[in-house]
Amino acid sequence: MNKKKIINDPVYGFVSIPSGFIFDLIQHPFLQRLRYIKQVSMTHLVYPGALHTRFQHVVGAMHLMQLAVDTLKSKEVSITEEEEAAVLIAILLHDIGHGPFSHSLEHTIIEGVSHEVISALLMKKLNIQFDGRLDLAITIFNNQYHRKFLHQLVSGQLDIDRMDYLNRDSFFTGVSEGVISFDRIIKMLTVKDDELVVEIKGIYSVEKFLIARRLMYWQVYLHKTVIAAEQMLVKALARAKELSNAGEELFATPALSHFLRNKITADNFEEDPIHLTWFTKLDDTDIMSALKTWCDHDDFILRTLCSKLMKRDLFRTEMRNTDFTDIELNEIKEQVKNYFGLKESEIDYFFYHQVVQNSAYSAGSSPIKIANNKGDLKDIAEASDLSNLEALSKRVVKYTISYPKEISLLDQYGVENKKVKVN
Amino acid sequence: MNKKKIINDPVYGFVSIPSGFIFDLIQHPFLQRLRYIKQVSMTHLVYPGALHTRFQHVVGAMHLMQLAVDTLKSKEVSITEEEEAAVLIAILLHDIGHGPFSHSLEHTIIEGVSHEVISALLMKKLNIQFDGRLDLAITIFNNQYHRKFLHQLVSGQLDIDRMDYLNRDSFFTGVSEGVISFDRIIKMLTVKDDELVVEIKGIYSVEKFLIARRLMYWQVYLHKTVIAAEQMLVKALARAKELSNAGEELFATPALSHFLRNKITADNFEEDPIHLTWFTKLDDTDIMSALKTWCDHDDFILRTLCSKLMKRDLFRTEMRNTDFTDIELNEIKEQVKNYFGLKESEIDYFFYHQVVQNSAYSAGSSPIKIANNKGDLKDIAEASDLSNLEALSKRVVKYTISYPKEISLLDQYGVENKKVKVN
Amino acid sequence: MNKKKIINDPVYGFVSIPSGFIFDLIQHPFLQRLRYIKQVSMTHLVYPGALHTRFQHVVGAMHLMQLAVDTLKSKEVSITEEEEAAVLIAILLHDIGHGPFSHSLEHTIIEGVSHEVISALLMKKLNIQFDGRLDLAITIFNNQYHRKFLHQLVSGQLDIDRMDYLNRDSFFTGVSEGVISFDRIIKMLTVKDDELVVEIKGIYSVEKFLIARRLMYWQVYLHKTVIAAEQMLVKALARAKELSNAGEELFATPALSHFLRNKITADNFEEDPIHLTWFTKLDDTDIMSALKTWCDHDDFILRTLCSKLMKRDLFRTEMRNTDFTDIELNEIKEQVKNYFGLKESEIDYFFYHQVVQNSAYSAGSSPIKIANNKGDLKDIAEASDLSNLEALSKRVVKYTISYPKEISLLDQYGVENKKVKVN
Amino acid sequence: MNKKKIINDPVYGFVSIPSGFIFDLIQHPFLQRLRYIKQVSMTHLVYPGALHTRFQHVVGAMHLMQLAVDTLKSKEVSITEEEEAAVLIAILLHDIGHGPFSHSLEHTIIEGVSHEVISALLMKKLNIQFDGRLDLAITIFNNQYHRKFLHQLVSGQLDIDRMDYLNRDSFFTGVSEGVISFDRIIKMLTVKDDELVVEIKGIYSVEKFLIARRLMYWQVYLHKTVIAAEQMLVKALARAKELSNAGEELFATPALSHFLRNKITADNFEEDPIHLTWFTKLDDTDIMSALKTWCDHDDFILRTLCSKLMKRDLFRTEMRNTDFTDIELNEIKEQVKNYFGLKESEIDYFFYHQVVQNSAYSAGSSPIKIANNKGDLKDIAEASDLSNLEALSKRVVKYTISYPKEISLLDQYGVENKKVKVN
Repeated sequence: MNKKKIINDPVYGFVSIPSGFIFDLIQHPFLQRLRYIKQVSMTHLVYPGALHTRFQHVVGAMHLMQLAVDTLKSKEVSITEEEEAAVLIAILLHDIGHGPFSHSLEHTIIEGVSHEVISALLMKKLNIQFDGRLDLAITIFNNQYHRKFLHQLVSGQLDIDRMDYLNRDSFFTGVSEGVISFDRIIKMLTVKDDELVVEIKGIYSVEKFLIARRLMYWQVYLHKTVIAAEQMLVKALARAKELSNAGEELFATPALSHFLRNKITADNFEEDPIHLTWFTKLDDTDIMSALKTWCDHDDFILRTLCSKLMKRDLFRTEMRNTDFTDIELNEIKEQVKNYFGLKESEIDYFFYHQVVQNSAYSAGSSPIKIANNKGDLKDIAEASDLSNLEALSKRVVKYTISYPKEISLLDQYGVENKKVKVN
Repeated sequence: MNKKKIINDPVYGFVSIPSGFIFDLIQHPFLQRLRYIKQVSMTHLVYPGALHTRFQHVVGAMHLMQLAVDTLKSKEVSITEEEEAAVLIAILLHDIGHGPFSHSLEHTIIEGVSHEVISALLMKKLNIQFDGRLDLAITIFNNQYHRKFLHQLVSGQLDIDRMDYLNRDSFFTGVSEGVISFDRIIKMLTVKDDELVVEIKGIYSVEKFLIARRLMYWQVYLHKTVIAAEQMLVKALARAKELSNAGEELFATPALSHFLRNKITADNFEEDPIHLTWFTKLDDTDIMSALKTWCDHDDFILRTLCSKLMKRDLFRTEMRNTDFTDIELNEIKEQVKNYFGLKESEIDYFFYHQVVQNSAYSAGSSPIKIANNKGDLKDIAEASDLSNLEALSKRVVKYTISYPKEISLLDQYGVENKKVKVN
Repeated sequence: MNKKKIINDPVYGFVSIPSGFIFDLIQHPFLQRLRYIKQVSMTHLVYPGALHTRFQHVVGAMHLMQLAVDTLKSKEVSITEEEEAAVLIAILLHDIGHGPFSHSLEHTIIEGVSHEVISALLMKKLNIQFDGRLDLAITIFNNQYHRKFLHQLVSGQLDIDRMDYLNRDSFFTGVSEGVISFDRIIKMLTVKDDELVVEIKGIYSVEKFLIARRLMYWQVYLHKTVIAAEQMLVKALARAKELSNAGEELFATPALSHFLRNKITADNFEEDPIHLTWFTKLDDTDIMSALKTWCDHDDFILRTLCSKLMKRDLFRTEMRNTDFTDIELNEIKEQVKNYFGLKESEIDYFFYHQVVQNSAYSAGSSPIKIANNKGDLKDIAEASDLSNLEALSKRVVKYTISYPKEISLLDQYGVENKKVKVN
Repeated sequence: MNKKKIINDPVYGFVSIPSGFIFDLIQHPFLQRLRYIKQVSMTHLVYPGALHTRFQHVVGAMHLMQLAVDTLKSKEVSITEEEEAAVLIAILLHDIGHGPFSHSLEHTIIEGVSHEVISALLMKKLNIQFDGRLDLAITIFNNQYHRKFLHQLVSGQLDIDRMDYLNRDSFFTGVSEGVISFDRIIKMLTVKDDELVVEIKGIYSVEKFLIARRLMYWQVYLHKTVIAAEQMLVKALARAKELSNAGEELFATPALSHFLRNKITADNFEEDPIHLTWFTKLDDTDIMSALKTWCDHDDFILRTLCSKLMKRDLFRTEMRNTDFTDIELNEIKEQVKNYFGLKESEIDYFFYHQVVQNSAYSAGSSPIKIANNKGDLKDIAEASDLSNLEALSKRVVKYTISYPKEISLLDQYGVENKKVKVN
């Protein structure tokens, strides 16, 4: 094949597809499915541009991986052709097991089956279809290859996955706080004893990367309105499953019906291939078409949650650094219950009490290592004389409550009555 | 209201919502619905980032309109508060009648009912709900207001609509050819005798705008693979309607079912409000969930079209400057028919012959006027000494045929057999 | 004047000049002089794009100030027309007293006369020329106006000056680490009891601003090669002045000659207007034309320093967190002395030992105040639960030595002999 | 050397220096000199950001050349290591003969010695210093190598030189009209029979490139105020040379003095190396320091021209499509003469009548060739069915007159008296 295939990516300009085999992988329905799964689920209700998909992410990550491999090779790190292909494939497939609104699904419709389990099954299936050509990629993905840096590029605290998603989520949300100098960081990568390390002069870029990640957590991923929307989705799906279990007929695509009607465990997935087959037909469309239709359902709870999601009448969320007291929680619960005429068992559909947390950097597991000019390695938290990293390692915990806007808690919390937040 | 509401827009950074009333309009379900309707329908199959919605577009256009109004006011063009609000509302509502995959729908499911008709009905309905506060906006939208420039800002050859969509479509496709200097053009706008005109020193920017528009047509809107994908969608929907008319039961959301099962004319829309109600429940989700499910339908034609769309196995398209001869067309048709075992009446589902055309600038209707330093007006095509505009006024016509990749026409057309295009 | 005057700025696109009076100020030779004074002096030897001038900076800062004023007014902070004009003028003039390579000059040619002193004199002179129309601007600049927020916008820890220079220096160096969300920060500004404060939801953007500032310090302003180049310039000028004082005739423009030949104190400046007149004729050109010519001077020290600057053969600099010991310092000094055949009194021209320090945020003086939803104010260091600010308040101190590349200290410091740094 | 040297470039992010030898070339004083020569001379008086240098341009062009070479190699165009190095060196050196304000100098101080002549001499000199290692680069530069595409990459209608300067001049002026999709164009390059050609699907990008180039000509390079400023510089230098020839002593750096005092021909340059040596010491600094100092010179003409340049009191320029009549010209000349009390022989210093012209594309010399899918080649003007190229091939001619703002021609030309243009 003489012509290089290229994909237009608004984030990086052009992405070249490195080989015919990788092109075939991208064309596979398992990968094409990711075109219909948004990277950051309900975030677009707060940041309207955030409609980018897991497909765009894995293609972009493959592009960055190519840059990283080229950089390492230019620094005389030996990487065989087979290793190069494998690490590109590994990053391309790293998200293959995600379902639509992954996090929400894992807590409801496909309870207890993590996307990692499904990724493993799908990679296995692909590998069979492609006659074992994914062997090394899977070995690297599972961190069973002796050259650790290849896995670290795919998954670690400074991996290509994170570089792409921070960049991409920044780009599409418009939150410039998350922009990272991925090109500079990649140019600073090197390998020492088969471990991925960063040259000392890249230390500020890495710090910036960690800070960008933290800011993206609090401004985007854990934005209080995003949290509310996602929890509303979780609860709507949970209600649907509950009704379904109780024998109600609910509108749904066949694929979604399969998971609404059946309780399917990780073991079931392994044993009966039918579940995986249905899973590979699920995407955001199934969820959204159901939500929309359920806006007219008889069940008050399901109907209300779906309508509020579709009209973007999202629950009000309060976030603070200390937990809410039982007195506070009960008072609001009581109001919710009375206002909507709910039974005790139904309150959790309309009132959420959550703990959210994040730390930008975790020194423990696979620390980011910095190599000074003499080649000595240090954990970045030590190498940085700026003591900033210490702060970034701290786990930040916040507490939230969410409830419908109709509930007036204003006197008590001093929040102005009419204030509505728009995004 | 003391706090300014703002929306993050990756294209412009921040968009301020100018008033509480406009905020209420944006929150209305008719506007929220546009969150689920992509601006450029199937284009994302060629440019994966092109998932932006009509919601983002109308909010962005409102932002540019505010800039335009501010510029004009700074040049001492008098614009009353009421006019300012009205023109902002007019641009916000200008796309409200679009359905999902608008162009495809208008040719199939809702045959013969243009989005303009529906826009008019929806604006009327909104105006009633908001006690006539949209009167002036609607008057401007319909070009019935005496100050013509207000309508020209909403709809003309250099309108705010085009400025936003060129910019936005460029941004999300990553096709930088379409980027325009919207800020420079807007700063060059002025008003003369209630007509919108451009200052002479903005002439190069306007030329660039026209050229950008032409390039976007040929690189994006009329990209041959985009054309193929949209025609495949048209044909899949047409087939579904045909089957439905013949009494077949097809999976669909209730809203889509309504339009699949009933033949509804523009008159019907006016007479029975139920049609408009169902229409406002339709978005991309209804179409995509149906397409996905129909991949397993019994009907060979429907199933094949849907599967190919979902797997991105798009029809090969050839585009050229002279039309195909009957001999050429028949030869390919025959091959398609034989290969897929189609009846004569079914060929059009698998073989498309289309004419596409575009001219960047049309001197006739509402020309772009340039004001020189003395205030004299000229049509831009005359004002430009560069004779380029003449070329841009020319209508370019191209001819395409599209057919499944399985068809081997290679000997005849000299196209290499295995070549597949990826985007 | 009907036509708005605009300036193209690659950073912000367009900058509108708000009034005819401000246009006249910009045209004044005192402002035009800033076209020939680079914002970051010798930094372009490390970041070749960093050639932007103080003229661009003050025009850009005026633009941001206009955005800030517009934001505050939209939040119903009352700002009179006179105050608006004055704060725009204050920011436009805030750097007017800077000479070429300001920092270097203040330590050599115009020893002991700070740019603040000269700014005050020049503003006074301008105010006379413009019949007192700068009165309020000067009052605000000097923090003598009762509405403190106006001064805080001009000069404080989150002022418009810093916002522009971080953005601009990032843009022209290409160090994306310094990019700040100036538009978001400005949109979050408000006023409480005549003090400038930031709304609580802007807290992450402010943190990002502080971090960006810190990164710019260590990656640009205190970059070890930049430090070396600037110190070489200081020493070249000091040597020239020394030779001049000893009666040597040195090539120089008349303006530079004036300052080379005479020892001029701040008092002299106040007393005899001739000094100020000569000062306003000085720009980067005077320094650079002299340096170039001195490359052929008889004096070995002057000639060597100038040649190395012009050929970009910059001193090697080592930077570390603990100070160098006397033993270390003496050993290198000895080598420098021997290698170049210097007298004891001449060593300081070829060997520099410096302390550099920076803290991103200083809680003491004029802290950044955050207003929560109830309007209560807190210092950002307290308001942030993320404990990051504490780290940013810490003063970071580093120690450097610089010496010509000819000196081989390699065995001792383990730095590879041939390694040269390029930028 | 294990570490890759990189240069921060705000336009492309990072530029890697491909080899140690190229690094040594960049460090050579002949290249370092280009740090002090602005790419677009006096343009910064209209676009204040346009201070970028020829140094930045040649480094950026080298970067694009590397991308082009990589693309061609990925398409299986064989390029030897020696050829690759040579073409990179050729582009790096292509501007080496430029003096400060090149165009102005060639018409005055170094009359009749083109920068091409000097480039040839400097390359020869460098080649001697580097023991013949530039042989192949020079052969390619002079188009004496049999593989024509290598020369075409350096110099042609779609060469790397133009790609970089359009991009870079756009970036630093802020005129976004000139932005080109250099990455897309480069990806579309290929080689057929040792000629550089563009793949058919790159045709729109090439058209955009030609249009961008045309727009940059009229908005930047031939901007009427830029033209005025450059002509003022030409005339100031011409006057200085005239005075110098008449025996006047003028302040100047030694290098500038050499060229002011002596009339030096191209032959002189070849015969006596002293001229080349002095030439390599000339940069923008020499010119600017002289201009500034001459503001206080006794000669009225020299003093006035220099003062107006330094104060940015630029001549008013009128540009039109038909030439001015003798009557018009004489009338203004007369006014200029009277107003300033000039002799007949002095009028040309204060009144300029110029013809400026440009065509975006010249079909004749080395046309841009497009390869269709079958590999057939066509001139782009034929391949494009859009007939736009024809317009772009047309030579556009404009006529200008420039004269001091003091001259009041207002009644006659109807231009408002007080109007001044700011940039």
